[in-house]
Amino acid sequence: MFIVKIRASYSAAHRLCREDLSEEANYALYGKCSNPNGHGHNYDLEVAVAGEIDPATGMVINFCEIQQLVDSLIIDQVDHKNLNVDVAFMRGVIPTVENMARIFWDILTPRIRNGRLHHVTVGERNSNMVTYAGPSPARSKLADS
Amino acid sequence: MFIVKIRASYSAAHRLCREDLSEEANYALYGKCSNPNGHGHNYDLEVAVAGEIDPATGMVINFCEIQQLVDSLIIDQVDHKNLNVDVAFMRGVIPTVENMARIFWDILTPRIRNGRLHHVTVGERNSNMVTYAGPSPARSKLADS
Amino acid sequence: MFIVKIRASYSAAHRLCREDLSEEANYALYGKCSNPNGHGHNYDLEVAVAGEIDPATGMVINFCEIQQLVDSLIIDQVDHKNLNVDVAFMRGVIPTVENMARIFWDILTPRIRNGRLHHVTVGERNSNMVTYAGPSPARSKLADS
Amino acid sequence: MFIVKIRASYSAAHRLCREDLSEEANYALYGKCSNPNGHGHNYDLEVAVAGEIDPATGMVINFCEIQQLVDSLIIDQVDHKNLNVDVAFMRGVIPTVENMARIFWDILTPRIRNGRLHHVTVGERNSNMVTYAGPSPARSKLADS
Amino acid sequence: MFIVKIRASYSAAHRLCREDLSEEANYALYGKCSNPNGHGHNYDLEVAVAGEIDPATGMVINFCEIQQLVDSLIIDQVDHKNLNVDVAFMRGVIPTVENMARIFWDILTPRIRNGRLHHVTVGERNSNMVTYAGPSPARSKLADS
Amino acid sequence: MFIVKIRASYSAAHRLCREDLSEEANYALYGKCSNPNGHGHNYDLEVAVAGEIDPATGMVINFCEIQQLVDSLIIDQVDHKNLNVDVAFMRGVIPTVENMARIFWDILTPRIRNGRLHHVTVGERNSNMVTYAGPSPARSKLADS
Repeated sequence: MFIVKIRASYSAAHRLCREDLSEEANYALYGKCSNPNGHGHNYDLEVAVAGEIDPATGMVINFCEIQQLVDSLIIDQVDHKNLNVDVAFMRGVIPTVENMARIFWDILTPRIRNGRLHHVTVGERNSNMVTYAGPSPARSKLADS
Repeated sequence: MFIVKIRASYSAAHRLCREDLSEEANYALYGKCSNPNGHGHNYDLEVAVAGEIDPATGMVINFCEIQQLVDSLIIDQVDHKNLNVDVAFMRGVIPTVENMARIFWDILTPRIRNGRLHHVTVGERNSNMVTYAGPSPARSKLADS
Repeated sequence: MFIVKIRASYSAAHRLCREDLSEEANYALYGKCSNPNGHGHNYDLEVAVAGEIDPATGMVINFCEIQQLVDSLIIDQVDHKNLNVDVAFMRGVIPTVENMARIFWDILTPRIRNGRLHHVTVGERNSNMVTYAGPSPARSKLADS
Repeated sequence: MFIVKIRASYSAAHRLCREDLSEEANYALYGKCSNPNGHGHNYDLEVAVAGEIDPATGMVINFCEIQQLVDSLIIDQVDHKNLNVDVAFMRGVIPTVENMARIFWDILTPRIRNGRLHHVTVGERNSNMVTYAGPSPARSKLADS
Repeated sequence: MFIVKIRASYSAAHRLCREDLSEEANYALYGKCSNPNGHGHNYDLEVAVAGEIDPATGMVINFCEIQQLVDSLIIDQVDHKNLNVDVAFMRGVIPTVENMARIFWDILTPRIRNGRLHHVTVGERNSNMVTYAGPSPARSKLADS
Repeated sequence: MFIVKIRASYSAAHRLCREDLSEEANYALYGKCSNPNGHGHNYDLEVAVAGEIDPATGMVINFCEIQQLVDSLIIDQVDHKNLNVDVAFMRGVIPTVENMARIFWDILTPRIRNGRLHHVTVGERNSNMVTYAGPSPARSKLADS
């Protein structure tokens, strides 16, 4: 099995807070990430697609094809934006890297042909990253029923 | 001559805009960096001090001493903050990396002992950086007179 | 499933040698890493925790919580130390990256709440790394009986 | 289980094209990678070996042993070469990173003692990588019968 | 004084050789870089512009403006190309990083407004770089006379 | 003018201490770098040579030539060594990065042909570096007299 990986990055502002909590409770939960006026990051994104090689082309999936999907569906929406306010698919979602990875997965997974999405990694600093490998098949079936 | 360099980083939100301009004019001037709700970066900071080696210690200046100055005077003020709103020494200043480098220079230069500040570099992405080496001596003298 | 990863680093000296072997035999086994007076590295550490997202917070586990565990239980013990001499939990252990990964796992795994330790990676140079994913469940049960 | 990883790099020229296709069809398939006179990369290679720790040495496999295998069997053959023309084991193969990962796997896997090859990752830029984890066991058996 | 720096990269093939020399003499001069069928690199380019800050905008020169010049005048010409064959402004020039830095300087320097070109750095690996800071003013004057 | 830069690295142990001071006084001066049993780093070294381009070759100086000088004169002496004990040219010298940069300069500068040594940078972590650009001409003359 092959796993093809592309990387991209975006620069965005965010604030971690639950609207139902006081500023003090948000600070207790999210620390300095709850700063009321927000802060920001250069986010690193890795998108990995698993598949078999096509012997005729020597490729699983064209890098450019994944890159274009990621650019148009994700990077163009989140780069140089405020993730709490500006992004339609983040509305009502606390903009943690976990939630971003999960949402990016949901956006990308139906669009991948010639393979299947393997994982999405989002990092907000080189020292803080989350990898999401999709819902487990068992739970997916339950979710469908 | 020796140049001792330390590096630090901070994550902050900013928006580039001139209050006297319309949103369209700001976009023409600053592009996507003028997004009204802001965006953000992991900023990289390099502070360089020039000096002579002290033969007794083998050091120009203790790395920890510069690091502590930079942490307390700069990083603690800007990390996880909104640079347009939250930072006293950025008030009324358009938060470009040029202005940050200049202001950080002004904050640090009187505090450096055992050497003199050589340059300050601020980067907002690995591909976009500014180095400020201080006002030229000539202009400094003029400024003093 | 989500995998949350934090990274840290420490600077330490070590020497690879077996006390029961001659200097020549140690050199044959460990090469230049057996230098009798030691050498050192900036070690890179990645700690990964697997878990489910808490919909109320959007987090699996707070990055800061893992970071504090890693800092207090590991980094504070090994940073700027001699791993053959100074570190209680390394006593009597050949300080290879394999052994460090295994010991760090054993230290961290009972302390992780809201998830379970997924892997520990220790690198002594960017080109030399080891990932340890814990004892296999089967062997773990045997070890318990 | 431990996974020991070493990294190496090589600088090479390549051109992606199928000999049975016109220049236009190759451009449609491979984009700018089909440039008739070739282009090139600094390729990054990660080789990972899985195994158990030898308690007597604290190692799974000596880093130097893997490094030497990788250097002699791969790097010495591909570094500062044209992958379409100069490399015996790439002859007749479209030099995609997928094909390189697969061929490097086939070269290395019979040579690994004290463990088994876990994966091979080849990247042509930091943003474009492929990981190959070998043929699946089921298919391997079929292939043997 | 401020120095604004942008970075870009390009992937290209090249061969170092003097047409007037034998293959052996080229190997003696350029080593493995003289491989007759070429090799390649991911080249790193840094372009630095020196200037004064415009207090009205907080900028020396818009990063995007430099980036667009570099992309259109350089990257679009050399990326995914063979530097010995495909690039008009490299024709008849041995494609060393020294020559690239010098030629990129000559291309960019008349196009920089709001400042002057300070240096151009070209690296073919992270370990091999050349910085060119332009002809010295003295020699420039001589060259003009 | 061109500045050609090569980079190398070495892994070594060191301890910062003055033999004439108590352990407490050394800790006050050098902090955790005074740990009695030592610690270590992956040191990064940059060696820069300034010169004019040779139009016949397109090079200032062959990268390999500098690399070989640096490898044989420096890296082979300090890599996987204890800098306080094992290295002849460090004997009696407090192994700060300042002193290393100065000594490496003195070792390399008479060996550079086709140009002159421009600077030597030694870093013990990515965040802590020293650049040495040689004794000033004035002081050099005094030293000669």
